[in-house]
This record gives sequence, C-alpha cells and structure tokens, in this order.
Amino acid sequence: MKTNRRSQAVFPRGIVSHLPESAARKRQVEERILSVFAQWGFQEIIPGAFEFFDQLQQGTDDRLLEDSYKLTDRGSGRVMVLRPDVTLQIARIAATTLAGAPKPLRLSYRSSAYRYENDQARKNREVSQVGVELLGLEQPEADAEMVAIAVESLERAGLRSYQIALGQAAFVRGMIERPDLGPEPRAAIRDAVLRKDLSQLEAITAEAHLSPAHRQGLLELPRLFGKEEILDRAEAVADNPASKGAVANLREVYRFLRIYGLDRYVVMDLGEARGFDYYTGILFEVFAEGVGQKVGGGGRYDRLIGKFGEPCPATGFALDVDLLQEALERQRALSEYRGPDFLIVDLSKDKTVALELAKGLRKRGDRAARDIIRRELERSIAYAKESRIAQVLVLGARGAKPDEAVVIDCRSNERKKLKIRKILGKS
Amino acid sequence: MKTNRRSQAVFPRGIVSHLPESAARKRQVEERILSVFAQWGFQEIIPGAFEFFDQLQQGTDDRLLEDSYKLTDRGSGRVMVLRPDVTLQIARIAATTLAGAPKPLRLSYRSSAYRYENDQARKNREVSQVGVELLGLEQPEADAEMVAIAVESLERAGLRSYQIALGQAAFVRGMIERPDLGPEPRAAIRDAVLRKDLSQLEAITAEAHLSPAHRQGLLELPRLFGKEEILDRAEAVADNPASKGAVANLREVYRFLRIYGLDRYVVMDLGEARGFDYYTGILFEVFAEGVGQKVGGGGRYDRLIGKFGEPCPATGFALDVDLLQEALERQRALSEYRGPDFLIVDLSKDKTVALELAKGLRKRGDRAARDIIRRELERSIAYAKESRIAQVLVLGARGAKPDEAVVIDCRSNERKKLKIRKILGKS
Repeated sequence: MKTNRRSQAVFPRGIVSHLPESAARKRQVEERILSVFAQWGFQEIIPGAFEFFDQLQQGTDDRLLEDSYKLTDRGSGRVMVLRPDVTLQIARIAATTLAGAPKPLRLSYRSSAYRYENDQARKNREVSQVGVELLGLEQPEADAEMVAIAVESLERAGLRSYQIALGQAAFVRGMIERPDLGPEPRAAIRDAVLRKDLSQLEAITAEAHLSPAHRQGLLELPRLFGKEEILDRAEAVADNPASKGAVANLREVYRFLRIYGLDRYVVMDLGEARGFDYYTGILFEVFAEGVGQKVGGGGRYDRLIGKFGEPCPATGFALDVDLLQEALERQRALSEYRGPDFLIVDLSKDKTVALELAKGLRKRGDRAARDIIRRELERSIAYAKESRIAQVLVLGARGAKPDEAVVIDCRSNERKKLKIRKILGKS
Repeated sequence: MKTNRRSQAVFPRGIVSHLPESAARKRQVEERILSVFAQWGFQEIIPGAFEFFDQLQQGTDDRLLEDSYKLTDRGSGRVMVLRPDVTLQIARIAATTLAGAPKPLRLSYRSSAYRYENDQARKNREVSQVGVELLGLEQPEADAEMVAIAVESLERAGLRSYQIALGQAAFVRGMIERPDLGPEPRAAIRDAVLRKDLSQLEAITAEAHLSPAHRQGLLELPRLFGKEEILDRAEAVADNPASKGAVANLREVYRFLRIYGLDRYVVMDLGEARGFDYYTGILFEVFAEGVGQKVGGGGRYDRLIGKFGEPCPATGFALDVDLLQEALERQRALSEYRGPDFLIVDLSKDKTVALELAKGLRKRGDRAARDIIRRELERSIAYAKESRIAQVLVLGARGAKPDEAVVIDCRSNERKKLKIRKILGKS
C-alpha cells in the first residue's frame, strides 16, 4: 500500500501551486491589470466560492454544470458547485443583491473558476482570472470599452505580441438557427464552423436540403476572418435580420476602436461561435504569441442577468492570469525576481541594536529578514546569495563598534563598515 | 416546484460575497498586512485549491479531514479535498517541492481555507486568510518573530484594541498525556481545560485515580492565565520534563517579546490547548475587541513537515481577514469608500476630446469612468453622487468651447468651466 501510494502523484493534475518566484510574477501581472481596471472606473467585487447548483442552472447550459465540481451542503442537503464561471456568478449577484444599484455599474474581479477539463486545450482546472463586467449599457461604445480595456491591460502587463479576434454571436446564430435546420445539423455546422473545417461543413450542408444561397453563406463562415473588408463580405452573406444587425453592430464597435486607435490589434472573425451560450452580441478572444490557446475573452450577454431576476444588458471580459504569465515569461516581459533587501546577522549579545535597525529599515519600506540561525558568517552570506537577498548587515562583527554594521553587497562582495544611523539615512 | 425553489436561499450559508464597498475595505486590510509580511522578508506563495485526500491524511487528524469538502478527481478516481487548511498544504510543499530550499525559508500567503462548520463559533465556510510560515528555525526567537509580526500586522491594519493569548502546546500535553490517564479521560480533561470548565474538570479528575499532586496540577490549568507571574505558577505546577521545558521555552519567548516592547499586548494562557494536533510548542491566539471569536492564531509545528517528507522545524500564524475586517469596521478604522475620481459625460459629437481627456486622467493614475448612457445631465450627476464619484466632467456642454469641460464637484455642487489642458495639469 505504502509503495503504491508513493508511486502516485503528490498533487492533482491541473492544479498549480506558485512558489515565491512565480508567485511574485503572477501578482505583478495581476496588479498591473487591476490598476488598469481601477483607472477605467471599475470597482472590485469578491464573489464567494460556492453557489447552489439549482440557482446556477437557471442561467447556464448543462455542459458547464456537468463540468463543475459538486459538493453537498451539509445543512440543507442541497447540491452546491464550486464557482465554475465568474460572469455567471456576477450575473446572479447583479440580478439579486445589486438589482437596485445605479447603472452603469462597473465591476471587476480577481478570482478563480474551477472546472473538470472537457476541453483538451485547457490544462488548468483552477483558472485564475482577472476580469470586468459593465452592466446596464446596451450601447456599442460599451463593447468597444471592453476591447479597449483588454488592449490596455495587455499593454500594461507588458505583452508585446497579441491579437484580438472580434466576432458577433448573433451573426452565426442568424445563419444557423433557421427553421429548415434541425438541432443536430445546427450543432454539427456550428462545430465545423468553430473548427474552420470546410470539408466537414461541405458534407453537412450538402445533406441538409438548404437553399443554394443559404448553403453558400454557411460555407463562407469559416472564411470571414480578416480586417475591415470582412465586414462587407459578411454583409453580402447575411440573408436574415439577425445576421444583418450583427454586422451593423460590429461595424459600429469597430468604428469606435478606430477612433481609439486600437484597430491594429483587432482582426474580425465572423465565424466565431465559441463560448458559452450566454453571449448575445459582440464577443472576442485574446491570443498571445507563444501560447497555444486563448489567454482571455469576453463579450455581450444581454439575456443572462434576466434569467436570475431583474434583466439588464451587460458586457465584459476576463483574462487567464496563468496563461498570460506564461506568455509574458516567454517574452521576458516580467521583472527579475528579487529576494528581501537585507539580511540582518546579529552576532552581538545586545539584541536591541539589531531590532532598531530592522525597525528602521522596515519603517522606510525596505524588506529586512533576520538570520536567527547561529552559523558561520560565510554560510549566512551564501544563504543570502541563494535567496537573492541584496545586502547582508552584520552586527557585533569583530572590530566593529556597537553602533556600526558591516555591510556586505551580495553581488559585488564588497564589504564596508557603516554607522547604523548612516544606513538608516539619518544624518 | 418553482415556488419552492424561490423560497429557498439564493446562496449557501456561510459563503460571503463582498460587494464593492466591502471588497475595497477587505483589500485594504489585506494589502496593509501583506506589506508588513513583505517588510519582514516573507515571500508569497500561492497554493493550488485541491489536494489529494490520502496525501493530507499523512499530516492531519481525521477531524479536520471529516470537516473538509471532498471531490472526486475524474481522471484518477482519487478523492481530492478543497484546501481545508493552508499550513497543512504549505507543510506538504515544504517537505517535497521546497525540500532543498535554503533555510530559514520565510513564506507568506493570501488564500482561503474551506470547511464545513463543526465549530459553532465559526460561521464562514470559506475562511479568507493572510498568514506566514517560518521554516527551518527551532529558536525561540523565531516564535517571538511570529508574535511580533502579528502585532505589527494588527497595528498596520489599524486595529485599536486586541490581545494575544500565548500558550505552549507541550505544557498541557505534558500534564495530560500520562500513563495513568486513558485516552477518554485525556480528551475529557483537555476539553474541560479548553472551556475553562472547572466543575467539569473537578468531576473528571476525581474519578481518574490520580496522585493528589497531579490532580491539583490539572485543576490549576484553567487558572494559569495572566501576565508574567503566571510563568512562576506554571513552573510550580509542572511535574514532568515536557511541561517544565514548555515553561522555560515560553519564558525565553516572552523575554524576546519584552525586548521587542510587545509584552503589553500579550497575556499568557498555559491552559491553551486549542488548535490542530500539529502544534508542538508555542501557540497563540489573537482576540480583537468587538468580535466574539479569535481573529487569528498560530504556533510552532515541528513535527508536521516530516510527515510529508523531509523533516523541518517550523512556526507560523494566520489572520482571518473577514473577521479582522469586521473588528476594524466596528472600530471605524478603515477608510471611507470612494467611487472613481471622475465621471466623463460626453455631449459632443467628436469623441476624440473625451477620449484624450480620459486617457490623460488615467495616465496620471486617476480613475475615470465614462457615462456612455444618453440621459439628462442632472441624472448623470445624481448617478455620480450615488456612485460616490468625486467629480463630473461634461464635454460639449452648451456655451462651452470644444477644448473646455464643465467641472462639477459632487460634494459642493460647484460648477466651473476649465480648459482640458488645465484639468490635465498641463500648462
């Protein structure tokens, strides 16, 4: 039994623990992006970890819930789920607790979503996200704001190479959800469009008894990918009011993005049909160079909040912090890891000098660790170097006065005696 | 069915979602404390959400695991638990991934622990914590450092009235874990000591066939609570090496706390026997005025890490952020909630001026939200006031030039026209 246990994994697959170096960089990514959210007037909310299954069921398709972690509530016996999606949860809160809040309501979050992987591309089961939701606005300008914040977030995070694929959920929906197409061919077409699988799409549409024009339109979907000229081609393909409206809406959002000077980051993808069923309008995905999957995305979900109570138009997006960090690390866009500023080694009997020194350093914002272990000074210095500590301050060293410290620079190995007052910058 | 569902709770009991006002204050508490941790040289780690049940089982008693949320790992079929305790998880990481890291290793975290409540006092099932672990030091000075950081954290957080109850796990253990006491009376005595229930303690010890001196010692336990003089009384009671060693250790830690000038925050509680079985030495609890339960605690756990692999002495503590926030709110020690700095209302046709203004404000770190909704200006102002936005900037107002904005102060209702360049602080 014991041997067997040892041969098993120590921690679950798809669950990442960030050790100090990685954690510091992860927080760096988060803080940079959260500062952008705040500057655009978004206010953070912190959603609780669990929701009742039957509550979330009101707002989402079964696939997402099937992919969620379920728990039994001991008190009530009801089934709970560990937050599978933050937007869904914020929608529930917006429809209930925040129903009376003044609109537009700008909310941001830093939270994790938990899902079993049913999607081969997604490796992490704990998806660490930062995101925003803009509630109460149906204007295209609100969608443009989402793209603008996404771009500014990526820029602030330091990402050098990325692209935003912009689509409109109603366009594909208008092309597929037609009386002459049953649910099965619809799903198959959607799937083929999503994978841009033309031969599959040809086969399905050939069997489906469609008008030649409709079939031709469907076959165009995977090719409606590119810059502004795609909008004209999409307009020609759109043979129904929903798809026509979708193109007009996309055109308007794109106009704002051009005013914002952001059009160079954006490519249009009218075949975009990914994402939860909750998207109703503009939707977008963020791709970063060097990462094989999207690092974020979002869109408009005007009908979701109403499923939980008071209806409200809404748009939003989220970025996957771990994937973004991965992309940034590959592009070497994050600061080098640094340990504490000082290691204080106290060889004196009188603890008060070390204490005063540490207090003084911390008071001015420096990071100062105490060595505490009794060991050879050289071993303390080696420890400091290994821990990426910048300087070692030795108190009570032979030949030094009680109000002096030997200052050792861990990079240059330079050593000098300095008065404590001098180290603390007092005259 | 539908009516029945509506009469049920919308979200699970013991799960808190923080809306913007509360979330802002919660982050304020966290950031203040995390800055203290960093200044003492601690490096954050971010542990993953799940652990394998059988892995954690190596390190903890069944009670904690019974109280944990279990999930099935779909891939391996193994049972996982949602992190019930951060220290336990860090111990596992320290014994495995970080086994070779240079010591002392100072780790900090901001994380949540999840448990069904078996303890009536604890209301939250998602316990949001900030904490530190100091690994690799067996010196009493390391324990004193924990108390010192706890005090400094509470001070930095702004708490005005609190107390730290300091005990030593080996003291009570030495008094109870004796050959002449079976497991049942041991548990009963421990329980009575914990609740300071003297009459219960008298009854149990009367039945237990103990030497008069031992019985007298046990009856003293609930009374060993107070300032320094308690140490002498405890020494007189201690009739075994473990308890004697515990008093000597506590005396040494207390000596450091006196040097640190922290003794005034500390009361000794030698009857302290709470906490997980993992504590082996110094242990302490933090009590804040106005909150009916402890807001944090910690202690030494020298044998825990070895259960997962490479042994290592360790000490640490954690604070419950939500409870601390509650105490701080009661003491009115947190900043007043503020919405964004500016609401930009754009009545002009040319979007570029509003865009430039927003960009300029955000660039200098201000928080600026766009109104976007088309509505009467007075309604926008009412919205700004309700959202605690400081100032409204109106572009394209009648009588204003294209490079001017009407600046409305939401507190004073004062209105004035200003050049955009002036607002942005350009000359």
